[in-house]
This record gives sequence, C-alpha cells and structure tokens, in this order.
Amino acid sequence: MDPRDVRELLERVRTGELATDQALEVLQQLPFRDIGIATVDHHRALRQGVPEVIFGQGKSVDQIVAIIEEIVRVGQSVLVTRIEPDKGEAIAARVPSFQYAPLARTGKVTVKPPPERAVGPIAVVTAGTSDIPIAEEAAETLLAIGLRPDRIYDVGVAGLHRLLLRVDELRHAAAVIVIAGMEGALPSVVGGLVATPVIAVPTSIGYGAALSGFTALFSMLTSCASGVVVVNIDSGFGAAMAAHRMLPGSS
Amino acid sequence: MDPRDVRELLERVRTGELATDQALEVLQQLPFRDIGIATVDHHRALRQGVPEVIFGQGKSVDQIVAIIEEIVRVGQSVLVTRIEPDKGEAIAARVPSFQYAPLARTGKVTVKPPPERAVGPIAVVTAGTSDIPIAEEAAETLLAIGLRPDRIYDVGVAGLHRLLLRVDELRHAAAVIVIAGMEGALPSVVGGLVATPVIAVPTSIGYGAALSGFTALFSMLTSCASGVVVVNIDSGFGAAMAAHRMLPGSS
Amino acid sequence: MDPRDVRELLERVRTGELATDQALEVLQQLPFRDIGIATVDHHRALRQGVPEVIFGQGKSVDQIVAIIEEIVRVGQSVLVTRIEPDKGEAIAARVPSFQYAPLARTGKVTVKPPPERAVGPIAVVTAGTSDIPIAEEAAETLLAIGLRPDRIYDVGVAGLHRLLLRVDELRHAAAVIVIAGMEGALPSVVGGLVATPVIAVPTSIGYGAALSGFTALFSMLTSCASGVVVVNIDSGFGAAMAAHRMLPGSS
Amino acid sequence: MDPRDVRELLERVRTGELATDQALEVLQQLPFRDIGIATVDHHRALRQGVPEVIFGQGKSVDQIVAIIEEIVRVGQSVLVTRIEPDKGEAIAARVPSFQYAPLARTGKVTVKPPPERAVGPIAVVTAGTSDIPIAEEAAETLLAIGLRPDRIYDVGVAGLHRLLLRVDELRHAAAVIVIAGMEGALPSVVGGLVATPVIAVPTSIGYGAALSGFTALFSMLTSCASGVVVVNIDSGFGAAMAAHRMLPGSS
Amino acid sequence: MDPRDVRELLERVRTGELATDQALEVLQQLPFRDIGIATVDHHRALRQGVPEVIFGQGKSVDQIVAIIEEIVRVGQSVLVTRIEPDKGEAIAARVPSFQYAPLARTGKVTVKPPPERAVGPIAVVTAGTSDIPIAEEAAETLLAIGLRPDRIYDVGVAGLHRLLLRVDELRHAAAVIVIAGMEGALPSVVGGLVATPVIAVPTSIGYGAALSGFTALFSMLTSCASGVVVVNIDSGFGAAMAAHRMLPGSS
Amino acid sequence: MDPRDVRELLERVRTGELATDQALEVLQQLPFRDIGIATVDHHRALRQGVPEVIFGQGKSVDQIVAIIEEIVRVGQSVLVTRIEPDKGEAIAARVPSFQYAPLARTGKVTVKPPPERAVGPIAVVTAGTSDIPIAEEAAETLLAIGLRPDRIYDVGVAGLHRLLLRVDELRHAAAVIVIAGMEGALPSVVGGLVATPVIAVPTSIGYGAALSGFTALFSMLTSCASGVVVVNIDSGFGAAMAAHRMLPGSS
Amino acid sequence: MDPRDVRELLERVRTGELATDQALEVLQQLPFRDIGIATVDHHRALRQGVPEVIFGQGKSVDQIVAIIEEIVRVGQSVLVTRIEPDKGEAIAARVPSFQYAPLARTGKVTVKPPPERAVGPIAVVTAGTSDIPIAEEAAETLLAIGLRPDRIYDVGVAGLHRLLLRVDELRHAAAVIVIAGMEGALPSVVGGLVATPVIAVPTSIGYGAALSGFTALFSMLTSCASGVVVVNIDSGFGAAMAAHRMLPGSS
Amino acid sequence: MDPRDVRELLERVRTGELATDQALEVLQQLPFRDIGIATVDHHRALRQGVPEVIFGQGKSVDQIVAIIEEIVRVGQSVLVTRIEPDKGEAIAARVPSFQYAPLARTGKVTVKPPPERAVGPIAVVTAGTSDIPIAEEAAETLLAIGLRPDRIYDVGVAGLHRLLLRVDELRHAAAVIVIAGMEGALPSVVGGLVATPVIAVPTSIGYGAALSGFTALFSMLTSCASGVVVVNIDSGFGAAMAAHRMLPGSS
Repeated sequence: MDPRDVRELLERVRTGELATDQALEVLQQLPFRDIGIATVDHHRALRQGVPEVIFGQGKSVDQIVAIIEEIVRVGQSVLVTRIEPDKGEAIAARVPSFQYAPLARTGKVTVKPPPERAVGPIAVVTAGTSDIPIAEEAAETLLAIGLRPDRIYDVGVAGLHRLLLRVDELRHAAAVIVIAGMEGALPSVVGGLVATPVIAVPTSIGYGAALSGFTALFSMLTSCASGVVVVNIDSGFGAAMAAHRMLPGSS
Repeated sequence: MDPRDVRELLERVRTGELATDQALEVLQQLPFRDIGIATVDHHRALRQGVPEVIFGQGKSVDQIVAIIEEIVRVGQSVLVTRIEPDKGEAIAARVPSFQYAPLARTGKVTVKPPPERAVGPIAVVTAGTSDIPIAEEAAETLLAIGLRPDRIYDVGVAGLHRLLLRVDELRHAAAVIVIAGMEGALPSVVGGLVATPVIAVPTSIGYGAALSGFTALFSMLTSCASGVVVVNIDSGFGAAMAAHRMLPGSS
Repeated sequence: MDPRDVRELLERVRTGELATDQALEVLQQLPFRDIGIATVDHHRALRQGVPEVIFGQGKSVDQIVAIIEEIVRVGQSVLVTRIEPDKGEAIAARVPSFQYAPLARTGKVTVKPPPERAVGPIAVVTAGTSDIPIAEEAAETLLAIGLRPDRIYDVGVAGLHRLLLRVDELRHAAAVIVIAGMEGALPSVVGGLVATPVIAVPTSIGYGAALSGFTALFSMLTSCASGVVVVNIDSGFGAAMAAHRMLPGSS
Repeated sequence: MDPRDVRELLERVRTGELATDQALEVLQQLPFRDIGIATVDHHRALRQGVPEVIFGQGKSVDQIVAIIEEIVRVGQSVLVTRIEPDKGEAIAARVPSFQYAPLARTGKVTVKPPPERAVGPIAVVTAGTSDIPIAEEAAETLLAIGLRPDRIYDVGVAGLHRLLLRVDELRHAAAVIVIAGMEGALPSVVGGLVATPVIAVPTSIGYGAALSGFTALFSMLTSCASGVVVVNIDSGFGAAMAAHRMLPGSS
Repeated sequence: MDPRDVRELLERVRTGELATDQALEVLQQLPFRDIGIATVDHHRALRQGVPEVIFGQGKSVDQIVAIIEEIVRVGQSVLVTRIEPDKGEAIAARVPSFQYAPLARTGKVTVKPPPERAVGPIAVVTAGTSDIPIAEEAAETLLAIGLRPDRIYDVGVAGLHRLLLRVDELRHAAAVIVIAGMEGALPSVVGGLVATPVIAVPTSIGYGAALSGFTALFSMLTSCASGVVVVNIDSGFGAAMAAHRMLPGSS
Repeated sequence: MDPRDVRELLERVRTGELATDQALEVLQQLPFRDIGIATVDHHRALRQGVPEVIFGQGKSVDQIVAIIEEIVRVGQSVLVTRIEPDKGEAIAARVPSFQYAPLARTGKVTVKPPPERAVGPIAVVTAGTSDIPIAEEAAETLLAIGLRPDRIYDVGVAGLHRLLLRVDELRHAAAVIVIAGMEGALPSVVGGLVATPVIAVPTSIGYGAALSGFTALFSMLTSCASGVVVVNIDSGFGAAMAAHRMLPGSS
Repeated sequence: MDPRDVRELLERVRTGELATDQALEVLQQLPFRDIGIATVDHHRALRQGVPEVIFGQGKSVDQIVAIIEEIVRVGQSVLVTRIEPDKGEAIAARVPSFQYAPLARTGKVTVKPPPERAVGPIAVVTAGTSDIPIAEEAAETLLAIGLRPDRIYDVGVAGLHRLLLRVDELRHAAAVIVIAGMEGALPSVVGGLVATPVIAVPTSIGYGAALSGFTALFSMLTSCASGVVVVNIDSGFGAAMAAHRMLPGSS
Repeated sequence: MDPRDVRELLERVRTGELATDQALEVLQQLPFRDIGIATVDHHRALRQGVPEVIFGQGKSVDQIVAIIEEIVRVGQSVLVTRIEPDKGEAIAARVPSFQYAPLARTGKVTVKPPPERAVGPIAVVTAGTSDIPIAEEAAETLLAIGLRPDRIYDVGVAGLHRLLLRVDELRHAAAVIVIAGMEGALPSVVGGLVATPVIAVPTSIGYGAALSGFTALFSMLTSCASGVVVVNIDSGFGAAMAAHRMLPGSS
C-alpha cells in the first residue's frame, strides 16, 4: 500500500532479485493471519504504535483466548476492552499473564511495555461518581499506550467550586478527557477554561430525558466552547485513542 | 364549579330568591362569549389574575382584532404573543391602543395596569445574544402581569467569568428565568449557584446536534442541579407565567 | 465565590489577620471532602437548605454507605433516592439509623429534623394507581425538606368527576405536583383549575405510543394551560425540589 | 373478486350464455379507466357509497381538472381535498360547477346529492381556534357523504367550563370527532363523558415539544379513555370517512 | 355533571325535600369509592355499559384482588387485562369465580352476563400467527361486553389468496378489527375490500425496522384506504372497546 | 389468481367437465391448510421455488413442531429461522430429521434437496467477527435454496488491506452479501469494487451511536456507491432470499 | 488494484520493458482527472458499464457544465440526476446536446448509446399518481443504461383489482421496481405475487405519520414478503442502478 | 480565577499596595465589555490565542458590525462565520477592512496576523464536491489562526483509487480533517490509513436516510477506526478549532 514498499518491491523484481510470482505472493502475504474466527492484523500494531486491541463485547471466552494467544505468539502486547468480571476471571484462569481491571472492565497481556512518551499527564475528569467506570476504561487504555492519566473525579457543574479549585491541574495536562452523563455540560465549562485538547465522552448515566447518553452526546457536539471534540457514548477507550493520536510519539 | 358558588346558588334556590330555571340559566351563563371563531373566556383572567392572552401564531389579523375587541369591550387588558412585525403593524393600524414590541414579537392593550406586586425582580438570563428574542418575550409578559424583569444577557458557560461576576444579582432575584440554546448548560450552573426558583427555557438556537432546541430541552430536564423546572422550547411566555404562579399575589 | 466572602477575606489579609498563603489555603479548603469515589460537598446542604442527597442508582451498597457515613460524620442529614428494596435492606443492616421507604424507593438518616416551614401543604396528585411510586418519591422528599404532602391519588381525566370533587383541596395547596403517564393530560386540566404553581411529572407508565414517558413529557411541555412547569420523567424527587425552591424558607 | 359474482359468471359460462373469452374479458373490464396519469376507479364510489375523492396535494391544476372531468363524465360526484386557495380558484375557473371551501381547503362537484341518512349529527369539536381548518375539512367531507356536522369549537381542557356546558350536545351526537393539537388532551376528557364513538384527530398546531402533531397523536393513542380511535395528523378527511364507516347507511 | 341531575337536585332543594348541605353532600357522594390504592369509579360501568376494567400491568396480585372484590361487592362484573399466567393463577387461587384466559392474558369475574346485542359478528383478523395473543385480547374483551368475535387468523398480504378467499366473511361482519405487526399493510388492503368500520391494531411483532410496532402504527395511520382508524400498539382491548362504541346498544 | 388457471377452469366449466359448484370449490380449495394456529400455504413453496420457511421467534416449540409436521406431511422441505439453542434442541428431540445450526440459529428438515443452480458462489462478507451469526443465517439459507456461500469474514474498512487482497474473490461471486454493524461503511467500499449485485445487511453490533443497527442501516441506504440494496437489520435470511430472487433458476 | 494488472505490470518491469519509476508513475496515473471542483473518475464508467452520473442537487450550473464537458471530452455519455427545471434549462442552453426530462428531473448527453441487453423489461410500478416523478427518474436511468422500463402506475393496495389485473405483466418482467409512499404496502403484495427481484423505493409522499418517507421505508424493510430489497427514500436512480447490477450484461 | 492571579492580588492587598475595595473592583473589571447586545469577552482571545469569533447566523448586519467595531477598537482580529453572501457584502460596505470568502461563508478583519506556527499542514479532505463549502469554512478558520490547510477534495470511498493515491499526502499532514455527508464512511477508512489526529465532520449532504447529517454523524461516532473524533454537523469551524487545540503553539 505504501508507495515506498511498492517501489522497493518493483526494484527487486527489476533486478531479478525477486520473481514476478514471488512478488505477487509477498504482496499477498502482508502480515494478516486468518485464525478462522478473525483476520488478525499484526500490521495494525506496527502501523499505529499501539498494542493490539480486542473489543470483548459479544465474543466468547474461547474466541478471546484464541485471539490473545495468536497476538502474543508473534510478540505483541494486547488489550481487551468491555469484558465483564466473570469473563475476565475465566480468561485469567486460562492465560496466566492476563491482568484484569474490574472497574474498567479491561484486561491486558503486556509482552513489551509501551515506549515512554515525553508528554504531560492526560487529565481524566468526571462529572459524577457514576461516570467512573468509563473514566477507568480511558485510564487503563492510556496506561497501555504509554500515557499517564491524572484522575479528577466528581467535579460536575452543579457544584462549580469543586471544578474551579482544580483549574491549575487541568491547565497542566497535555489533553483533557471530560466524561459526563445526564446533561453533559462539563466539557463546555472545561473547554472555556483550558486551551489544550478537550475530548468529551458522553455517558449513559441518567434516566428519562437523558436518553441513554444521547442528550449528553448532542450537548457536547453543540457545545458553546469551540474546538471540543466528541467520541461515542461510554467510549473511554475511544477517548484515550484520540489522545494517543493527538500527542507526540504516536507513530 | 367552585363548591362555594354552588352552595350559595343552592341557598338562594332554597330561600326562593332564585327559581330553579333561573339557577340553571346562571350555571349556564358563566362568563364565556362565543364570537364565532373563539369561545372567549372572560372568567380566566379573573380566575388567574392575568390579562387575557392570545396565542397569535396561525391566527389572521382579522381574527386577532376581533378577539382583542371582545376582550377590551368588557374592560380587560390583553396580551398577544407570537406576532411577526408585519402583522403587529397591521393590528396597531386598526387598534390604536395596541402597543407592539418587535424584539419580543408581542403586543398589548392595557385597559387597567396590572396590580403592583411586592416581590423582587425576576432575573431573565440568556446564554447568548441569539437567545434575546425569547428573553424579551418573557420580559414583556412579566411586565404585563405586574412583575419586574432584570435582564442579564450573553453570560453562557464557555466564558464563566461573565456569569460569576453577576452571581450577587442572581441571588437577589425572586426567581431566575434561564434561557439557552445549543447544549443548554446554563441552568445547571445557575441552579448550583442560587436557591431560588430556576425556570429553564430551551431555545431553538444552534444547528445539527442542537436538534432545534431538543438537545437544550433534554439537557435541562436531566440537569444535575436539583429542582430546576423546564418549559417548552422558545416559550418565554410560558416561563413568565410559571414565575407568575410561583410568586405571591398571583391569585 | 460569594463576593462578601471574598471581601471579608481580603479585609482580613489587609489587616494582617491572615497571611497570604493562609488565605489561599482557606480558599482551597472550602467544605469539600474527597473520599476517593466522590467529592462530597458539605457546602451544598448549607447553600440550599436541604439534607445531602445521594442518587442511589448505579452505586454499590459499599459506595452508598461510605458517602452516608461521611455526611453523617459532619452532622448533616442525608436522603438517598432510587434504591431497590434489596439494596435498601443491605444499607439498613449496616447503618442502623437508615430508614427505608420501599414504595418510594428512598431511604434517609435524619441527624437533625428539617426546620418547620410556614407554608400550606403540597398537593401530590396522580392520574392512576400505577403512578403512586413516583408520587411517594415526591412525598418522601417533601417530608425530608420540611414540607407537607397532601396525597390525592387516581383522579385521571377519563373520570373527571373524581378530580372535580377535590378542586377545593387543590386550591388550598401551596403548590400542586401532578404526576401522570400515558397521555399526560392531567396537568393541563389542573393548571386550568388552580392559580398556584403546577409542577408536572411525566411517568413511564403505559406502553406503545406512551413512549416510556416521552408522550406525557411532551404533552406537559406543550400544555394549553399556561405556566405549567415540567421535570424529568419519573422524577418525583425533582418535583419536590422544585417545590422547595418556590416556597418561602428555602434559603 | 366477490364469490357471488364469480359464481354468476361461471353459471352464465356453463349455460353457454357467455363464451369463455367473453367471461375473461368481463373479468378484465372491471370499472377502471386509465387516463394516463391515474387509474380512475369508478368502482370504488359504488363499493363504498361515497363520491370519488382526489387527494389534491402535489397534483397540478391540469391533473386535477382531468381527473374531475373523467369522474363527472360517468355521472359521479367528486370531492377534492388539500387544495390551496390559488389552486382552488384556478380549478373553479375551468370547471364552473366546482365549489371551493377556502377554510377547509376542499372543493367539490355535486352531480347527484348524497343519499339522506337517518342518523344524528356528528359533533366536530376543536380544542382551539387554530384547529378550525382541520375541523372544516371534516365538516365538508361529512356534508359530501350525507352526514350532518355539529360544530363545537374552542373548548379545550384548560378552560373546562366551556366543554362541560356542552356535554348534552356531545351526548346527542351519533359520533364525536375531536380535533386537538399541542398536548391533545381533549379526546381523553370527551371519551370519559360520552359512550358514542370518539374519533380523535391530532393537529400540527403548537411548537417545540408539540413535535408537529406527534405529541397529540401519541397522546391520543395512549388515551386513558378506552375505545378512542385515532386517524393521521391533520386528517379531517380521514375522521369524516371513519364516521361514514361507523354509521348506518354506509354501504 | 348531567344537567338533568342538577335540575332535579335543585328542584328537590327548592321544595325543601333536600337541605342545602344534604344536596352538597349528594353532589360529593357520586358513586366513587376510595379503597386506598385506587378511586374505584362504579359510575363508569353504568355510564358506558361495560364491566369495570382493570389494567393489570404493574399492579400486584394483592392490589388486583382488592379492586376485584370492591367491584364484585356492588354487583358489577369485572375484566382484568395484561396479567401474566403466574399472576393469573395466583388471582384465581384467591378469587374462585375468576376465569383466566392465558393466550389473551385476560381474566374476568362475570357477576351478570353482558346484555345481548343485536349486531353481527366482529371479524378479528391477524396477519400472522404471532399476532394471535393480541387478537385474543380483543376477542375476550368483545365477549365480555356482549359482542361476538369471528376469528380469521394468519391471512397477511404476502399470500393474498388466503385473504381473498375470506372476503365474504369480512363483508358480513359488523366491524373488522385488523391486527398486524411488521409493515402493517393488512388494514389498507382490508379497508379497500369492505365498507364497514376497520379498526387497525399495530403489534410489536418484528425486529429492526419494525421499530417495536411503530412502523405498523405509522403505516396504518397513513393508510391509503380511507376511514381506517387506529388504536395503540398491541391494544386488542382498545380495539374491542372502539367496536363497542361504534355498535348499537353501547349506552 | 393466475389468468391462465382461470381460463382453464372456465373452459372446463363450459365443456361440462366441471359443475359450477365444483369449480367454485376448486377455487376455494387452493393449497392452504388451516391447522388452527396458522394458515399453512403449501402453494408458496411451489410459487417461489423455495422450501417453506417458518419465522421461529415468538412461536412455541409446540407450534413450530405442528407447522413442520404439516409441511413435511405434504412432502416439502422446511427451514426455521431465529430459534435459540434450547428451542432448537427441543425441536430436534421431537422431529429426528431436524438439523439445527447453532451459530446461525436456524434448523431444517430436508425432504428433497433443493435443485442445483448453475450460478457462481454468493460471497458472504462481514466487517467483523461479531457479525458472523448473521452471516451464518444467510449462508444456511443460501444452502437451503440451492445456492453456494463463499464466506469472507472480518475484513472491515479500518484495515483496508484485508479487503483489497480478496477483491478477486469478490469479483468472481454471482452476488455479494455484505454484513456490517457500527458505521456500516463496508458495502459502500465493496459497491465501488464490484459490478455484481451488492446486498447490504446492517447488524445491531455496536453501542451508543450505533443505534442498535439503525446507523448502519441508514448508512447503507445513503451509500455513495450506486445500486447497493438493503434489507432489514440482522436479516441474513432476507439477504439470502434477495439473492435467490436475483439469480437464474429462482422460479 | 486488480491483481492481474499488478502481475502484468510486474512482468513488464521484470522484462525491463518498463523502468521502476515508470511503473510507479503508471500506478499513479490511473484514469482520474482533477478539474478543481471534482476528481472525475473516468475509470468508473468502464468499471461498472454505465454512463458517468452526476448528482445534480447542490451543485451550480457552472459546476455541472464543467463536469459534463470533462466527461464528454473523453468520449463518455453522462446522466445528471436531481436537477430542477430552471437549472435544466440553463444547462441545455450551454450544452446543446443536453436532453432534459422535466418530470424525472434528469438530463443526459448521449455520446454513445448504451449497449443493448438481452433481458426482459423492468416493471416500474407506482402506488399512486404522486409517486410518478420518482418512477420517471428510475425509467430515465434504466433507459440510459440500456434497460427497458414497463410503466405500471397508480395501482396501490386500497384498490386491489387494479393490481391483480396486471399480475401477468408483472410476472413477465425481469425485475420489478415498486414505488410507494404513505404506508408503503405495495412491495409486500407484489413480493408475494412474483418470484423475480423486487426493488422497493419508498417515497416522501404523504403527511403526518408518513414521516417524509420513513414509514414507507421501514414498512418495506420489514415486509412480510421475503427477499424484497430496499433503496433510499425517493431514489428512483438507486433502484434502476440496483436493477442494473442484478441483470446480465452489467459488467 | 487563576490561583496565581488571586495570590498576586492578595499579596498586593497585604502590602497595602491595593485597597480592599480596589482589589474587589479589579476582580470585577476583568476584560469584558457590555455593548448592550453582547458581553464581548476580550479575554477569550488572549486566553485561547485566537482571533475573536462571531457566530453570524441569526444576527443582524447592525449587530455584527457593532461587535466587529468593538473588537477591532481594542486591537484584536475578528473572524465571522455563517454569513450569507448578501449579509457579507452589506458588512463589507460598512467595514472596509472586512474580507468576505463566499464559498466558506466567512469574513474577517485582520488587525494583526496570527503568529506563525511550526507545524505541518492540516489536510482538509472531502468525500464529495458538495462538501466543499464546509471544507472551506475549515480552511478559512485554519488560516485565521495561523495553520496551513492542504485541500484534498472529492475522494469518497466509492472510488477508493482516488483516496489511495493520496495516502502519502495524508500521512504528511499534522492532522486530518475529514468531511463527509451521506453515509460518512470516509473517516473510518482514513483513520485506518494514518496515525495522526483524524477530526471527522459530518455534513448535511444527502437526502432521505441521510437524515440531514445525522447518519454521517452517528456513523463517524461509531467508526471502527479507533481514536477518530467528531464535531457537530456542518461545523468546519469546529474542526479547525479542534486542530488548533491539538497542535503546538495553541496557548
């Protein structure tokens, strides 16, 4: 896909170093591996500088273990998101190196630790106590990709004092992940207080008019603070990966 | 309908002061007047202590003038909401005592000024400049029912300083009407700062995810500040009438 | 935040009564307490004249007990909403002073009873039998903040007699909380009968076109009775807090 | 389609009265006429006992005139709904017997008056003045099919007196068409007062949470008064046709 | 409420037959009975000629038994809708005269059988096998109010033959209740085939784009067959009550 | 229904070969069979060249077994969709020839194998591993109607290499069924790569803004690749039947 | 992209016929042309066997003319969809060979006529007269790609006779495009009558519950006739292109 | 607000350099200016390093000119978004230094050019020609804040070649703004190709199932490419401001 690779390949064909059929085979042997239930893409980790990630929801323990083992086999680390505690324990029982974080509902096998990155902490801010599981999913993902979370929890806009006293801390962060359900007002306020990236995560906390997170989602998208960006409802993982793309050392 | 009235009527029947048929007639001659296009309810003004109000949207100039004249004929004041400027001018041309407020899109004929009410001002707060027409509808309605608006405009949450410097003013109001479009976050913040009634008005300002005011509406309904109440989208009139119900001297 | 506090602080700095660093520390030692899972805001109770309230949904028994104990430790009362019976019993087993109301799904610890308030009763009206749990949440909250509920249940508009015979009672209330699911028509009718505040609570009762409470919600927002205000679906708590803001003695 | 017709046809084939091919031709010569832009179904009028009806919206004056002329040619009456005034006048200029009703936005050519029907009047009730155009569409349709409308306008639930004084009139109607926008509460109240058919018509009157008539629609569908039926938003025509089906003499 | 009753009462007051206070008391002793959890309205049965109906969903066995007993105590029949089998059996164990119909999820106590009504059968038509429970709710309700159901099941539009062969039967019905989920096309086809009332019931059968019955609901409301009326999703009971209102002998 | 059949019937009546009443009976004895719970349409299989299909969701084991037996009795094969494993096993216990495919949640009884069809394979492509159950429902249905699935799983657009390397395979398919949840982008990309029919199946995989499959559905409907067609959410069966209609040998 | 092209290119590099840099350049000189406002893809026409198509909505006359000229310059035909009459005339004034079809709102320049295709006609069926513009867009597109439309208009399900008499015609079509607004029931009925491909096009005809075409869309997606496929609302073009993919001679 | 400012102020009060009242006044004289219609916040520009921005939609020419003049008066640059051409020209006529960009519908007065920033270009990518206005709003905003746009237009996923040939260019950008309407698939594909920040902008291009941009919005939020972030529909401005926050030199 990358023109430099194509050029090099062509060059090797031209010099006779590689036969036409071999070249075609190389093009077809890009680093995928079909293990029946999935086309594991070992290239992605290299390409984006992150451990392989498995979306655990809707996959069986057998499937997850099979994918983990294939990834670990080639020497990569792996992060699994959205695994409920019983599933997490079942996987740990079969893959001893698997570390499960119950609050975040994530687990990982660290084959090689992520490279250190020369950036400040990422503030992970929640409006309420109920938003903490999503915040922890973000924090665990940040750790897995070599970033450092700074947790600032339960500082929603109905008690503005709590937030204002921590403005300094927010301003020293390399980026701010703001997690809120219900009316989702917190990112607008934070966005007006800091100049760094603000990644808003709506959560499904609330009832009735909270619309399972859509009120917070729309609220954040139409925020009066400019430059606030948004990821999917309850996607702590997505927010962390967005921070990863924004900060030096991601590629 | 009111048991006391029924009792008095029964008593007058019992004493022979009133014949049965007359009593029945009285019951049927409650103060309505059918003017063809509307059943004008002169009783409502008495019942709720407010001038008669006409919802102008979707009514013709002829219809509005006819209803105004019927109301004024019996000595009541009248307020008309939701009239576009051209219609407002056409009415004024035919009813000289009609005063039109273009920003609020309201007009009124004041036959007798509303009674003075011994309450503090009602803060009318907007998040942005674009919310001002709705705020003016609220302010004009407040004036028509004898309440005093205190306008605090363009103090949205993305520039928190502007709001915080006026907290004292908010705390001295008898009630606070908070008007905001887009993400509708302002009532949550105001609700955390004052203990008095907070009436939130979502506006249809914004685009895309603002959903013509529904994002602000849902945001306000699921506000993390407790006891905030909400009226319909763009209903400055509804907010003023809600304040009217809440404050002494409404009945 | 309050200018008077800032002025006093400045004055004490000016007079040397307080060192600069001490003043800063005071500003930072506002009455919050970070207990790990929550930033408990002891100031809020003072600020709004109510017991601390915990939204129980989505919190574990451990978390709720920890927050209750922190609040009680500083001598405040506490109300917990949205706790299912099994959770309620588990908390009561660990906090003996905890009183659980199963119909309302609320519980409380009363350290000091709320101050008496010189206002009339708050009518709590339901359209049907199925709306009673929400009504009880409102009633329990009213009691916790020193207001007196007057329960008027099962008087929906399809049998108008039942409502009309209790109009007197409605007219003597300081405010009326009207709770209805399905088509949510009751607040419009009540709003036309009384001049006092009408706080409408849509409930999720009904099926199909009832849209889990949204039909009642939109119905109430677009009520033809002016000045009716609305809170979130199923939010008996929100309605009681709104009454609290509207009535004398709230601050 | 009707087995009796098939049997008769078969019998005539059996007796040699009709050749096989002729029989097939008869089956294919059912009373349709393709006039290019439409397949005019003259059978429908016979089948359902009503004049032919043209839905005028989105059709040009040319198209409407062509269809009217085809219908009149075979001696049927015709009713056209949803024609704006300018179109109505243009049609009248070309079809002199065309009578246009501007408020209802309907027009008709009466070739033979509808048969008299031995039923009481149909009450056509509106909640507000703005609902009158839809009510007039219902009334005009009722007249076109031989039913008698009894107009009861502007008696919405916020002023209950107006409705209650006309209960007798409602009870004497053969059926009640109830037309309301905004919260659509009127059919629930009427449904509790009368035992006759209640046909609810939601209108698109209102703004914001009125959702262009969907709030009234859902409200009416989930009405707490049993046996209320509903037609499409703004469909005065549909309500009249529903009454037609319900009353003696429709077939 | 009824003017004749008021007139008679007034007359008795005038003749001294009744004291003023007694008259007031009579007005207040209309046939309601408050049994704590419900305001049982014995008048309704009289007023609408039907047994009392209890909406069973969301009520406990205790509550239902208490309401049944109060109704039976005054000599009325009672129908309970929306009771799951386990609840139905529990009620039957405590009220021996209670007859439960599991497919329809309804139960009844027949104190006096409904009066015979001189009308033809009501066709109860379903598009598929899965719509049968809703059809049975309609059928059971029809029986409880003295109407006769004619069941025509599983004749949806994808196999038109099945429907066309039963057109005669449809045409002999006094009214047709058409029950369909998924795309809800059946009422449009039936409405084109018969001239009698067509009451459409959308069901929540289907998945994805079936939208839990809303696609069928909207489909039926915007039916191209004129005069089709619609009730709430899955409301077999509502359809039967609508038929009741439409047919002779309902009051 | 088919004119040729009617003509033949008429001809036999004309020649006296068939009595009128017999002819009518024949018309009424089209190959349906009412087995109480369903009107089994044996004609449909003949008419569309497929085994009978039962939609298993919401039907009891008893009902499904009864319908299977009726179909098998007349010598047809049968396919049952949407049966959960426990139900599938229960049916297999009672109908020994019933073969259950747990991943696809389908089962079948093959009385006579489907005719061989002279067309290429049908590519069944999924974006992710979680879409496989829907793909298997499509594959099982294809097999039941004599078409050959070519499974290409887990080749979503975020890792474009995986898809591009299999373009040849896609281009050799007679039609491509593309199954994707979340943002549903895969059919747009595939539609740009192949000229054969592309049948898009949205799945309910994803959370939050995935809207239970509606985001993928709308995405596919508004695809920028022209000529892509769409079936209902999660309808692997519908996609296979669509392929059946498109390919030679379907009738 | 196509492995055969890559293999040939590699072979030519290997034999020295092509220098490495030349090969790379070839890979980059695929037949696109950037004309500033658009990346015109001349390859697409070749790839899919159709004239270039321009989506006219939202493009200026200048932009459309520029793109047409670029396409015609290389000897391709071009079809433009969604152009209102005034725009169509403006383009024709500047491009004399441009033929505009006002009913379909399409225009085309035919440089070389499409190849003849050995397939039967495509039935283009509408439920009503108002659906004709969408049907004409389909018909014009079919003609532009060498397919033959058979127009069957105004045969909606409320008058079933009209449709049934044309079943033979439907059965002789190679595919059936069914276009319907309002309740969108027609494709379900047609799908039960024919075994060939049924492509359903929902239209935005109707009001209220028709939801601008979404009711018809969802209705068609959840059709009880299996194998019906759906394209976007009002997309006559999409339906024709879908037919193109399904029929022999498309690539 | 900033603790350092508070500390410094306190210090100056302590040293007597500043009187208490003066300090309070300073706190209240933060750089806002109330010009009647707006609270112009000169601090924001300083705080976030950008020119003042006015949201032009819904503001009159008079209002915009007044706000521009106030901003320019204090020596700041200003950018106005969402101004239609006629309004843009009217402003330019009154403010000669005002430069209007019609395609982007933005205008600006540059008092001092933005500081140069040492970052690479920002790729601004569109799926189609119709998305260009939103792309230009982004590009104009980038220029106003000192960033360099690299425009890559009309490279949607249905013609994948066009995109793949420009992958190198995408990989050299500091961030990629991806703008797409309809199914919004482009950001998922781009997100899989580059490791840098991907800011997705849904546009309201398309019809029917495109849902005025919501399908693209939800598609982007649930993208299978991780770390993609999203801004409001049609918000080219929001995307540029997001890039501003992400890149060095923003504060």
